[in-house]
Amino acid sequence: KINSERLWSSLMVMAEIGATPKGGCNRQALTDLDKAGRDLFVSWCKEIGCELRVDQMGNLFLRQKGADNNLPPVIIGSHLDSQPTGGRFDGVYGVLAGLEVLRTLNDANQQTLHPIEVVVWTNEEGARFSPAMIGSGVWSGEFSIDYGWQRADKQGATIKQELERIGYLGETPCAPFPIKAAFELHIEQGPILELINKQIGVVKGVQGMRWYDLVIHGQPVHAGPTPMDQRKDPVKAAAQIIAQLYALADEYAPQARATFGDINVTPGSRNTVPETLTLTVDLRNPNQGILQQMDQKFRQISKQVCAACDVDFEILDEWNSPAVEFDKTCIDAVREAVEETGIAYEEMFSGAGHDSVYVSRVAPTSMIFVPCEKGISHNEAENAKPEDIAAGCQVLLGAVLKLAAE
Amino acid sequence: KINSERLWSSLMVMAEIGATPKGGCNRQALTDLDKAGRDLFVSWCKEIGCELRVDQMGNLFLRQKGADNNLPPVIIGSHLDSQPTGGRFDGVYGVLAGLEVLRTLNDANQQTLHPIEVVVWTNEEGARFSPAMIGSGVWSGEFSIDYGWQRADKQGATIKQELERIGYLGETPCAPFPIKAAFELHIEQGPILELINKQIGVVKGVQGMRWYDLVIHGQPVHAGPTPMDQRKDPVKAAAQIIAQLYALADEYAPQARATFGDINVTPGSRNTVPETLTLTVDLRNPNQGILQQMDQKFRQISKQVCAACDVDFEILDEWNSPAVEFDKTCIDAVREAVEETGIAYEEMFSGAGHDSVYVSRVAPTSMIFVPCEKGISHNEAENAKPEDIAAGCQVLLGAVLKLAAE
Ligand SMILES: NC(=O)NCCC(=O)O
Ligand SMILES: NC(=O)NCCC(=O)O
Repeated sequence: KINSERLWSSLMVMAEIGATPKGGCNRQALTDLDKAGRDLFVSWCKEIGCELRVDQMGNLFLRQKGADNNLPPVIIGSHLDSQPTGGRFDGVYGVLAGLEVLRTLNDANQQTLHPIEVVVWTNEEGARFSPAMIGSGVWSGEFSIDYGWQRADKQGATIKQELERIGYLGETPCAPFPIKAAFELHIEQGPILELINKQIGVVKGVQGMRWYDLVIHGQPVHAGPTPMDQRKDPVKAAAQIIAQLYALADEYAPQARATFGDINVTPGSRNTVPETLTLTVDLRNPNQGILQQMDQKFRQISKQVCAACDVDFEILDEWNSPAVEFDKTCIDAVREAVEETGIAYEEMFSGAGHDSVYVSRVAPTSMIFVPCEKGISHNEAENAKPEDIAAGCQVLLGAVLKLAAE
Repeated sequence: KINSERLWSSLMVMAEIGATPKGGCNRQALTDLDKAGRDLFVSWCKEIGCELRVDQMGNLFLRQKGADNNLPPVIIGSHLDSQPTGGRFDGVYGVLAGLEVLRTLNDANQQTLHPIEVVVWTNEEGARFSPAMIGSGVWSGEFSIDYGWQRADKQGATIKQELERIGYLGETPCAPFPIKAAFELHIEQGPILELINKQIGVVKGVQGMRWYDLVIHGQPVHAGPTPMDQRKDPVKAAAQIIAQLYALADEYAPQARATFGDINVTPGSRNTVPETLTLTVDLRNPNQGILQQMDQKFRQISKQVCAACDVDFEILDEWNSPAVEFDKTCIDAVREAVEETGIAYEEMFSGAGHDSVYVSRVAPTSMIFVPCEKGISHNEAENAKPEDIAAGCQVLLGAVLKLAAE
């Protein structure tokens, strides 16, 4: 049985690193605060005898030896980075729950047959560096190491520079190795479990998602003397495209999602029609075929609207993460572990991307969800109940033990 | 007769201060480049014996003595600051044409009865510091000196700090004094004169304009798991409001204008519904009653859309510049001056705000326009023909001489 108070208090100590005034967390990937979070986590793991490997993407592998260290490890992974106005649970919960599993086994002097590794993946959020899940993405072979290293934040700092700066550019090749099973425990980040009053989500897969930058080029002119019908106004085009994409999401309701998280205009002067408008577009659907249709319609809508508004546009493909189905053995292990506890559960798909999406390409993988308050995440107010946090970790321990033992 | 080559070459020399790669000008108010432009202009004026006064808002008054210096001066004013991606004529043309008038009189050894002052008004554009025309606004009594001093740019630097920094915080009180007549020569910044093939606009007034910041408050949530119908999404509200305001401008076509020059969202993360969206809104109409209706409808639209989208909003009133009619005597002086040259002219209203809007509250005022290429302004590609530039200055000289002589 895990120590739920120890887990909760570790979460709260970690949440102080990057704590925000509104009770959330801003510990973005590869900042000084991310370094501080990593340092603290590594020190906790070393206290119980784990060995650290750091790979070329700064992914951390904390290894607890098994009885037979030639056998492939069971891995428990998630991330320590946060959104700019993020919460205290997204990602860090999965990492510290992994630590709690190791601490529990250590307290009980129990050694598993397979080694166990807790993994911290670099830049899962995609908030500072796009795309998301890049540490696990490079590791799994989805992206090359050069692509990963060269991704830059809005100020132009690259992942490689920032890894070097904070001392987490490792030498271990960023590449997959034999793995017995991979688990990731996470808050749901959506409202379903709370709504149906179940404490555990047995996650069977992850919906497909695509990221784009839509760049619209207009003509800067004076806001006063220029007649409306002589303008090439990127804001006019953007407003119509956004409205039509919300309508597109409605067309494929309730599953489809359309989100516009960032908008920038240049030169950004009140009395000048903008020259350029850049809009981030995030489209999602659990059905890969429908996501494909949404992608096509997004391109058509952009083309039609921009032609009608007499502006040019380009669509930059930032990310394409197809829908994923997890491994049956891992899903079964989670289901059996939760059934043994008697906790009410629901089988479900994830609306958010997770490192498990990429890990699942090279290792048997599944995930466990717990409810979060009102389904709110990517928000400083993100919250979860201590009893749910404990239940998720207990199920994780059960699932890990099943597959680490045989 | 003015020296058109000298005027053109002065314009081109000044355009090097803040020259942009695309052939425009970025000499924003109270930057180091603005200081350099002011220094150059003052040195040119001193060469022909003008005296400089700098007032508390950094407005510059360059005085050429008349035969009777107890008589009120005729003033010729405009601005040297530019948009971030501005052109080589907006504002600076009016200032350097004023200098060319003085140079011409100086060459001819001709002294007017009234003194003449060329005036450089601070921060006309409103691009770095909102609102526009603040130097002339404080001077005319529309704004208090404290309001003017405390206006800050996006980085928080105030006008007073920046005036001090560049050495243009003067001691002369920023307040009106007796003035015989005030003229401002400017490129049209719109397409009318070019379209109707006339070289001079006799400007009878300026349309009304209002600036707002619309701030929409939503709830940040995750782009993936959060159902569309459970979001409080400020982007959704903004897209609808923008579309309805374009429709509103159409309703009052062809005179009405609606422009959205700047949009900012926080936290600005791709996979998070924004917490806040701030939109600048610029509404204009030459008919003050219709502008009032547009203002009311803007507030109604914002209220209805935000209620439907379940988001909060506030409208911050940034600026309210009612429609203005210029002084009959000054308008007549311009009309007579242009008729004497035989140049084709049009009587018209200005779509852009100008310092003359505020000057006209305390002094008899009017303006002269010349065409600019395709009506494009607030754009690095802003252009004007040397012969039009010369014609405008010749008409200015004629109008000034009429009222400075009696
Ligand atoms: N869990 C999470 O926030 N993942 C980031 C990738 C995504 O946007 O779904
Ligand atoms: N002429 C000019 O650009 N004025 C600035 C004020 C406005 O936006 O009209």
